[in-house]
Amino acid sequence: MAKALVQPAKGTRDFLPQAVRRRRYAEQRIRRIYETHGFEPLETPTLERLETLSGKYGDEGDQLLFKVLLRGQPLVRGIRAATDHLAQPGSIVLGRSGETAPGAEPFLADMGLRYDLTVPLARAYAAHHASLPAVFKRYQIQPVWRADTPSKGRFREFYQCDVDVVGSSSLLVESEVLGAAVQCMQALGLQGYHLRLNHRGLLRSVMQRAGVPAALEVEAIVALDKLDKVGADGVRAELLERGVDDTAVSELLGLASDGGSLAQLQSFLDGSAEGLSALAEVRQILALTEHTAAAGKVRFDLSLARGLGYYTGAIFELQGEGLRGSLGGGGRYNGLVGLFLNREVPACGFALGFERLLLLMEEQGAFPENLDSVDAFVAGTPGHEPGRLLGMAERLRGAGLAAVLHPDAQKPARLRKLAHSRRAQFGFFLEGGSWSVWSAASDSTQRGVEEEAALRVAGVESVT
Amino acid sequence: MAKALVQPAKGTRDFLPQAVRRRRYAEQRIRRIYETHGFEPLETPTLERLETLSGKYGDEGDQLLFKVLLRGQPLVRGIRAATDHLAQPGSIVLGRSGETAPGAEPFLADMGLRYDLTVPLARAYAAHHASLPAVFKRYQIQPVWRADTPSKGRFREFYQCDVDVVGSSSLLVESEVLGAAVQCMQALGLQGYHLRLNHRGLLRSVMQRAGVPAALEVEAIVALDKLDKVGADGVRAELLERGVDDTAVSELLGLASDGGSLAQLQSFLDGSAEGLSALAEVRQILALTEHTAAAGKVRFDLSLARGLGYYTGAIFELQGEGLRGSLGGGGRYNGLVGLFLNREVPACGFALGFERLLLLMEEQGAFPENLDSVDAFVAGTPGHEPGRLLGMAERLRGAGLAAVLHPDAQKPARLRKLAHSRRAQFGFFLEGGSWSVWSAASDSTQRGVEEEAALRVAGVESVT
Repeated sequence: MAKALVQPAKGTRDFLPQAVRRRRYAEQRIRRIYETHGFEPLETPTLERLETLSGKYGDEGDQLLFKVLLRGQPLVRGIRAATDHLAQPGSIVLGRSGETAPGAEPFLADMGLRYDLTVPLARAYAAHHASLPAVFKRYQIQPVWRADTPSKGRFREFYQCDVDVVGSSSLLVESEVLGAAVQCMQALGLQGYHLRLNHRGLLRSVMQRAGVPAALEVEAIVALDKLDKVGADGVRAELLERGVDDTAVSELLGLASDGGSLAQLQSFLDGSAEGLSALAEVRQILALTEHTAAAGKVRFDLSLARGLGYYTGAIFELQGEGLRGSLGGGGRYNGLVGLFLNREVPACGFALGFERLLLLMEEQGAFPENLDSVDAFVAGTPGHEPGRLLGMAERLRGAGLAAVLHPDAQKPARLRKLAHSRRAQFGFFLEGGSWSVWSAASDSTQRGVEEEAALRVAGVESVT
Repeated sequence: MAKALVQPAKGTRDFLPQAVRRRRYAEQRIRRIYETHGFEPLETPTLERLETLSGKYGDEGDQLLFKVLLRGQPLVRGIRAATDHLAQPGSIVLGRSGETAPGAEPFLADMGLRYDLTVPLARAYAAHHASLPAVFKRYQIQPVWRADTPSKGRFREFYQCDVDVVGSSSLLVESEVLGAAVQCMQALGLQGYHLRLNHRGLLRSVMQRAGVPAALEVEAIVALDKLDKVGADGVRAELLERGVDDTAVSELLGLASDGGSLAQLQSFLDGSAEGLSALAEVRQILALTEHTAAAGKVRFDLSLARGLGYYTGAIFELQGEGLRGSLGGGGRYNGLVGLFLNREVPACGFALGFERLLLLMEEQGAFPENLDSVDAFVAGTPGHEPGRLLGMAERLRGAGLAAVLHPDAQKPARLRKLAHSRRAQFGFFLEGGSWSVWSAASDSTQRGVEEEAALRVAGVESVT
């Protein structure tokens, strides 16, 4: 079989032992922070109904959903329906790489792979709200899938670490999730980051007051979001091209320059009830976070927009200094749960981008050294009695030690090499009926030792 | 939105907090046993190329693969090809519930969801063998997916816990994975189970010697596997119906009765090199497991067959006493890795059925009581200062305690109820500028306490 076919599928990864250990180290530290904040764990299925996922992430998001092919009889019907769909004028359009058929997928697929952890939370909350607390604080660490073009640090299967509070409008929620995000960064041993804070209501009011037509509001917000990437001239060009007039553009860029000033916005928004209320929320979140681990790390930034459509209030991003893209983000989304339940339920949360945090930990040398070490490596030279190897390994484990049993007989020098490469503290080698005990610390071997004496070398005294 | 649409998709589950805690409790105990045995963690992607998965699990397995719909231009081509396929005579056949189109899927799908953890291990080992130890002992705890008809205890998304050793033919491997399986059961606090042991080579030789035609061998093994479900008469009827002659049927049933006897097989197989070699392996595994935690728990059973096609040597199942179906199983599969690599690599492993173990733990009351408790619940009555709540929660967490901050103000009686239902040891309620500290143990409240005194109640002495 050709080599290429044994590599993992495009955009996915095999995690070899050391990678898993590092991922688990980081995950456990994040989990511990969330647990000490009283967030409760939730897990939702990988597969969700296509109706649950569709229309929640914008057109681009819909395109990036991995969809699951129908099975059996529905597949036969689906192929026929998809064929009819293709036969209709205009159903096939020219995409970037050739013909595509938008709208054909729902004929052929009934489920999709989880795209984020927020829409599944809203769906699951609607399903189970009767048995959940009125204010449900949950965390969720699971993979999500996006049919994106893979690139460095960008995968088709990757993990997110979300905290969300469903059922409260209090700004304590915004403040607490920002504090928890910073505690996670501290627990991972990471340096050099801050939080950017903005507010969707504030953005809307600023756009209106600046004279951006309602129809161009979303495009203008998206353009403004690129300020730190393309600079003021880039944003100006894009806004003008999209049809925002010159005065409005200058107004916006003036307000957003250096992240914007709350005092300047206060007077700019004078008389706008929504704008001033949003501004008051921003001020209160800034004040409350001073009581958390996020103290001194939260910066208002009027140019922050966040891509996803479901945000309604405060929005935030965790920004690594000198890094492109964010390390995580979130905000308030008071409308999403209502799409699944016949009433509005306020919600707010924060998602850490696990893969980017791992890259940063690698760069900053934040992983401990000895994640892969074991206490003992047990093996024999040719002609050994295999039952004694099993017995020795069991006694070591019984004493709470991690003991690797190597099943194949080898010469002593080779066994020492294997024990060393498995990062064992001690090697127990059955040679000619008695034990040789090798110590990694001194790289020395005691030969001809009885079993009890061998165990004592590894500090096991009282095992019977 | 109708209620049905918020439930998880068919055969999948939402895990609410208490369920996640119990799953994690069990997972961590299993993980710890595997780690102390020196198995190293591996994780593979959810999505695998369809070629990787197809043809590995038999026809029925292929039908149960969840497949991922093509995207963009390939989808347009795929729909056209699938249409051409349907137009060919005989491409549509009548399945159980109507027309199906076997063979249409590969035109429309490029990937599938992981069906087990063994084929991905073989694929990943082939991809990475150069950077893995010559004898690779790995464990893997991840979900798998099967488009099966869901029923009680049978899901479309479920977890498996696998240990495998790749690269050794030693029977120490069989013995160690059986010992580890029993240690897992002990670590989970489970009672009432044993291990069934058989050997594919032995089964083959017995079939040949009994006079079962080679063409009927697989069917006869599958029929024999049902001995404990349908009894000797049931197996006899099925074997006769499949065309095995009466003498052979009687011979087989005689040999397999009560699991079979090694002494009887020894004489029955006299002169069959493969049969006697397999029998010697069975005897050696039985002897070696006596040095492990599996001592006294392994029973030879000639009627054990295991469904999957890739086994080549010893096969085993973990059987709960009085339970239908197995709690786990495995065996030696020396040919599978060779499908992905241009050389044979011996391998052997054991998979625990995580969902069944959880059901058994539930039945046997094996979960600890206090998985959901927290140390402190922090909240305020109407008019409280929210920053002080945040500060108190942070101080408690700083002292290593788990502190839930409740963001919404409530009356004192309601706060006590919330703290109680969140299983908190202490409630810290900010009322009229000072703290009331409620203790769950005594269900009593001290009112009007200063912050330092409040912290001392929870045993926090030296926090500044």
